[in-house]
Order: sequence, then structure tokens, then C-alpha cells
Amino acid sequence: MTADTGSSVIAQLVEALGEKVSTDAAGLSAAQADQSGHRSATAPLAIVDARSIDDVQQTMRIATRTRTPVVTRGAGTGLAGASIASAGQIVLSTASMTRVLEVNEADLLAVVEPGIINADLNAQLAQHGLWFAPDPASRAISTVGGNIATNAGGLLCAKYGVTRDAVLALKVVLADGRLISTGHRSVKGVTGLDLTALMVGSEGILGVIVEATVRLRRVVEGEIATIAAFFDTVVDAATASAALTAAGLQPAVMELVDPKTLRAIDDFVGGDLSSRGAAHLAVQFDGPSAAADARRALDILTEMGADADLTTDRAEGERLLATRRAAHASLERLGTTLIEDISVPRSAMPAMFSEIETIERKFGVSIPTLAHAGDGNLHPNFVFEGPEVPEHVWRAADELFQAALRLGGTLTGEHGVGTLKKRWLAAELGVDQVELQRQIKTVFDPLGILNPGKVF
Amino acid sequence: MTADTGSSVIAQLVEALGEKVSTDAAGLSAAQADQSGHRSATAPLAIVDARSIDDVQQTMRIATRTRTPVVTRGAGTGLAGASIASAGQIVLSTASMTRVLEVNEADLLAVVEPGIINADLNAQLAQHGLWFAPDPASRAISTVGGNIATNAGGLLCAKYGVTRDAVLALKVVLADGRLISTGHRSVKGVTGLDLTALMVGSEGILGVIVEATVRLRRVVEGEIATIAAFFDTVVDAATASAALTAAGLQPAVMELVDPKTLRAIDDFVGGDLSSRGAAHLAVQFDGPSAAADARRALDILTEMGADADLTTDRAEGERLLATRRAAHASLERLGTTLIEDISVPRSAMPAMFSEIETIERKFGVSIPTLAHAGDGNLHPNFVFEGPEVPEHVWRAADELFQAALRLGGTLTGEHGVGTLKKRWLAAELGVDQVELQRQIKTVFDPLGILNPGKVF
Repeated sequence: MTADTGSSVIAQLVEALGEKVSTDAAGLSAAQADQSGHRSATAPLAIVDARSIDDVQQTMRIATRTRTPVVTRGAGTGLAGASIASAGQIVLSTASMTRVLEVNEADLLAVVEPGIINADLNAQLAQHGLWFAPDPASRAISTVGGNIATNAGGLLCAKYGVTRDAVLALKVVLADGRLISTGHRSVKGVTGLDLTALMVGSEGILGVIVEATVRLRRVVEGEIATIAAFFDTVVDAATASAALTAAGLQPAVMELVDPKTLRAIDDFVGGDLSSRGAAHLAVQFDGPSAAADARRALDILTEMGADADLTTDRAEGERLLATRRAAHASLERLGTTLIEDISVPRSAMPAMFSEIETIERKFGVSIPTLAHAGDGNLHPNFVFEGPEVPEHVWRAADELFQAALRLGGTLTGEHGVGTLKKRWLAAELGVDQVELQRQIKTVFDPLGILNPGKVF
Repeated sequence: MTADTGSSVIAQLVEALGEKVSTDAAGLSAAQADQSGHRSATAPLAIVDARSIDDVQQTMRIATRTRTPVVTRGAGTGLAGASIASAGQIVLSTASMTRVLEVNEADLLAVVEPGIINADLNAQLAQHGLWFAPDPASRAISTVGGNIATNAGGLLCAKYGVTRDAVLALKVVLADGRLISTGHRSVKGVTGLDLTALMVGSEGILGVIVEATVRLRRVVEGEIATIAAFFDTVVDAATASAALTAAGLQPAVMELVDPKTLRAIDDFVGGDLSSRGAAHLAVQFDGPSAAADARRALDILTEMGADADLTTDRAEGERLLATRRAAHASLERLGTTLIEDISVPRSAMPAMFSEIETIERKFGVSIPTLAHAGDGNLHPNFVFEGPEVPEHVWRAADELFQAALRLGGTLTGEHGVGTLKKRWLAAELGVDQVELQRQIKTVFDPLGILNPGKVF
């Protein structure tokens, strides 16, 4: 069987789904990009704005029948290119599937559609004193379905886990349109292989997540205590952050900003934080022992040479963290940025920052870097001119990944592989494991129509 | 190619592995059973007592070459028949691979061989103030590798998670003897599909776990506060336990013992707990707010009609929990027991206990039941005479599973599918998902030599 022409595919979609199918040029163009700064060369065929599980099933049946590739897309806020669509592809948007189907206080779970924005879900949950813990920096604009498809991390992971830890069950539409239900509503469940965990972080290559049962937490009571600390060097700041966890402290948030990023933030917001110290570490504690823990942390940081302040005022604490939240926007003003996402064991963070400095000198590049210091997840940002990543930047990125792997780390902590990290996949997983993963992909997607060219 | 004869397989194993290969009758007989009370009809071929990854690889190469089935086995403490070996099979024991290869305090992780006993690992970790949280009731006799292969639960899961949450990375020998490394030492990592999570709970059907990097916690400081509460009925006790979590309390342990089990414990230990109330609920709090939380819990339980005591003495708390720990041994004296392992959402526990009473009356069976009440995991025990499960007990178990599924639950919360729950797999997963899982199994094990006849 040969593939149908694009116009025939569009006609079949329109016949089945009517006005939910769009070929509007602006929409197609938007689907060529995500927040990674990359875009595809050619627009996709059409966008299906699914409103229901049935819409997704109909789309996948047509895609299977016509051998047409499908890129599932939520809010398009990914940072690795996984939801970028190109020529001949159907964009299957779940962005309009935004309902909260159930909030269950007794069982601490919610059942949601994939398109709901993380922050919108949390706003609804807050009325019940509940909370969905996954907290990517994009939470105000990214969907829960996207969080699940990338196993999103964020600022709170060392204490409150990654997205995988918060997903109990999924409904998934398979490549041929069949619907399966994985997982369970109970805390425990070991019936068969854990396909829920396999789907989390699978970046659209195994199926379409159409419903999720997520684990909730109660809003943490008690004080919030926040420290802003300044150090002479980023390695000092990294060493101090490792000392806090080594002392048995468990901050909710611990965010590190290096000198280049701090200066960019100062320029962007008109501040002069850099005058207090080159590198910035923000540490926030919550829960019943927050204030006591923060005082211990303040003592340790000060002994290690920090200029540091502590506040137990919530609004003031948010203001201190705002420095970190302004980083992405501040760096974008410097040029095109390629955001990396390596993760290393906490104790290897100072060594990783030293490696970054070596790579900067060797390749003559600037790599402003942020880190979720509580869990060892670094975001080195390559900054350059023009839309294309220069070859020497790719070479510098290659050395960066090799260094992270040598230190026991991983090439992506929370953004995913997408298209941008494909070239290093085998370096981390080994060829035997990559081959196994490809075969698993084929079990789910024998025709290769689910997000082709991504991850592998 | 035809399969080699058993004697040829044994000869090849002996040639490669020497004295590590045993055909001792007592050992082979022991491998025909686990702690489920079931055993196979015929002894396996031989036992390989692997001491190293290389031993495992050599065994698997021979198994693949000769098409010989392999049953990986740790301490043989499983409760679902997954490690039971039978005619023509190689038993691959990892019980002698007991080394702790690394304890890393800064990164809160340990690297261990699979054969180490859970309690032995924790004894070593305690010297560092550290702790491996998975806490199956079998912890004194079960291996960490077995805990991982079954995604073992236990008493602490509602607060401290299941085994999957504590596994960062694995080394796995594939069916053909190749070695892969999955996962990462860092807190975060999303490179490719999550094969670590897929291996956890896979019951020996995908590969042989030969090394694990596990997440550690610091030993929880502060008081331990323990409550023993007695109620007139088990439904009252279940309702009260749900009320505690609904009130926002998070006990570390919450264990429920029904009247039949409590009487069996009294008979076994010569006590008279039943005189204080038919059903027993033990609740333990840890951490900085333990005493305050326990006082709140005591008030709630008392208001709901309990006769309850609170102690903040550690030894006295252990004594209160000892009641629960004596349950298994107490019930074994009543006859042959078939231990079930359903899990339901916490709020459905009272309804599940009512269903159990209905099933007892309908089938004229006695089903003494324990529950990890904090996470909704029930262990109904069918007690009968003789070695074989009577047909009416299977029918009663069938109704039990159907009821658990109707209530949003699962047919096994922590024991696994093994051989005992195979017949209900499709009822929970659906035929489409079972078929996907079978195909994933085939990707890992194209010859079908890894623990055949288990799970599927």
C-alpha cells in the first residue's frame, strides 16, 4: 500500500472531524517550532484540534490507514524539539482537552485531560488545599500532558519528585486508534509491566496520552523560609549547595545562577545584584521545620564565605526567587540560545562547573549556566548570533555531554531528547539498549507514524 | 535447531561455571517452591550459584544457545509463584551476589549486588545514618534484587514510596548474555525510554538484574509515636483509618488487622487483644511533628469509637507493631493459606471489607484479612485444608478480584502476578494491553527462555 497524498489525508480528516481540522497558515507555521529556538523547514499538512478521546482515535485511525506521521502537541513549550512538525505530518493538538474530570481529596488524586495548563490545574486544586507537585519552570504555559510526555522536572524535584512520581494511571490512544488504560488509582499496583512509567517521558513516540490520573499532595503548611546567598565564584556556590544536602538539609528549592547569567539578569531588570557577589544561590525551605532548617543553612553558607540574607516572609521569598525566574528571558536578549540540560550527581556539580569553564576557554564560547542545585540538573546556555547553531557550538556541546557522562550524569535531566539530543543517545545508553528501545517503539508503532525522527 | 538434552545443558554449565553448578536434590527441591505455599510438579535441571555478572552472562549464553528456560531466583520469598522452577529449567540464583559496592552519602545512593538481603543492606547503611526505604514485611529474608523484580511494597509506602521510587539505575543481563545499563546516578534523567522503571516489577521475564543503584534516605530523626486502636468491626477500623488521611495526617505506618486474624494472633502468642475490640489498627508517626500528629490522630480515633493507646516510646511502639508482624505466622497454623494482595483507593477500603464479608457468606469460606491501611493494600487470606487450592476458593478469589477492580483497584498491590494471578491479568489490563506487554516481553526475550509461564 502506498501512502495517500496530503490532500486526500486532509479530506479524510475533514470528513471525520469537520471544523476541528485546520490548515490555517499561521497555525501550521507555529507548529514548526517549539521553545527550543529551532524550527522545521516545511509546514505540516494540517492541525487537528482534538476535543475528545474519540477525536484522537479517529485521527489515529486515519493516520494508520494512510500511513501519515502524527506529531502530538500540547502548548508547544518543549525545549528539545520533540513537538516540532514538518512536511507531510498531521499535528494532533490536545491543547483544547482541558477538563478536570475529577478531584478526589480522600484518595489524593485528580483525573485530567492532557491539555490543561499545569498552573491552571494547580489553581483549581488550591481551592481544595491540594497541589500537583511537578513544577517545571514553564508551569504557567505548559500542559500536564506535555509535562508527562517529557517527564518534566523543575525546581522542586529533589524534595517532591519528578513528574513520573506523580502519575498513577494513563489512558493512551495507540497508533492504530485503539485505547488502553494503564496503571491504577491505588497507591500500589504491580499487575504486569509498568507501561505507565514507560509512557512517561516517551515524547510522543509510543502513543497519545488522552487522560491522566495524577497523584496530589496537600498544600504544605507552615512557614516558607528563603535565603539569597552570593559567592565569589560559581564553583564556591556549587560547593556550598552540596554542603547543605550533605548536612542533611532538604530544601524545597535550591537554584544556582552563575556570574554571566546574573549580569544578564541585572541588565534585563536594571538591578545590581552582581555587586554583592558574582554567583547567586537561592534556597527555600518549607514544612514544619522550615525556619530552623533555614537558620542552619544560613550558618553553613555564611561559614563558607557567602553574603547571605534569610527571610520568612512569603512575598519577600518569592521576590528572591524571581531573580532565578528572570534568567531565561534575560539570556534570550543576548543572542540565540541553545539551552542544554545535563544532570549529574549532586556531589559532581563543582567538577561540572569547572568542566564548563574549560570548555568555554577551549572553544571560545560563552556558556551562562543555571542549575537546579538541589538535584544536580544544570542548564548551560550556549549563546551565539544568527538562527543556526554554529559547528563549534555543537562541538562544545559534545564535550559538555561527554563530561557529564564521565561524572556519572545524563545528557538530559528534564527536557527530553527530541531532535536536539538524538546524536548523543547511544553515547549514554549504549548501542544494545538503543536497539532494545527502538524495538519497543516498533511494538507500539509498527508503521513508524508516531513522531518519527524524534528521540531515535 | 532442536533443544539440547538436559544432561548436555548441565555439562555445558559445569564446563563454564564449575562448582557453581549444583544438581543437589535438596536444592532442586527447594527451588520448586516459594513462600506462596505452591510448588511445581517436577524438579528443575540445575542451580547456578552466580557470584558475578560474568557468571550470569555465561549462564544466559548457554541458555540461549541451548534454548533452555531460566528462572532467576533470590531468596525464594515471593508470594505469587514467580520464582518457582520446574522441569527442564535452569535456576539462576543471585543469592550469593551480596556485595555493597558503594555507599555514597553525598549523593544519597548505594550500588549493590542483587542478592543482598534488604535488612542486611539497611544494617550496613545505618552506620552512615542512611536508609533504603522499601520495607516489605519479608525484609529480614528477602533480597534487594527480589524487591526490585517484584516492585515490593510494604508497610511504609504511603509515606515513603514503593521500590520503584527507590531505584535509580540497573545493570541487566539480557536473555542472550549481553549486559545493559539503564538509568542514571543523578536525581533526574530523561534520556530515552525509562527501561529502569520497566524492569522494576518485571518478575524475571525481561532480563536478569545483576546490579542496582538505589536511592537512599537519611534516617528520620525525632520521636516515633505509635497508636494501637481497637474497634468493634473491621469496617469501623477501615473507616477510621481513611478519616486519618482525610484529615491530612500522613502516618509512616498504618496497619489494620481484622477480627479473625486478631483471634489467630491471640491464639498464637497467647494474648487476649481481642478482649479490647474485634479489629486492630496500629498507626505510627515519625519525623519532627510525630507526637503532635499522633495526638491529633488519637483524638480522631477515639471520637470514632476506638479504645486506643498512644506511646512515644520506641520499644513500646515496636511491641505494638509486633502484633501485626505476627499475623502471617499465626494464620499459617490454621491451615493452608492462599494470600491475596488486592489494592484499592484508600476511600474504598470500607467498601472492600464489606465485599469480603459478602464473599465469605456466599462461598462459606473464612477470609482473615490484613491491610496496609495507609495505602489501601489488603491481604485477604483464604484458609483451607490440604495442599491444593479448592475450586470454590478460586471462585471466591475471582469474585474478590472483580470487586477490587470495580472499586478502582488492582489484583496485586505488591506481590506480583507470578503464576497465581495470571488468570486475571486480562480482566485488569484488557486484551489489547496484555498483547502489547507480551510483545515487549518478546523484544527482550525472543526465544521465550526467561521465566516462561510467569505473568502471562
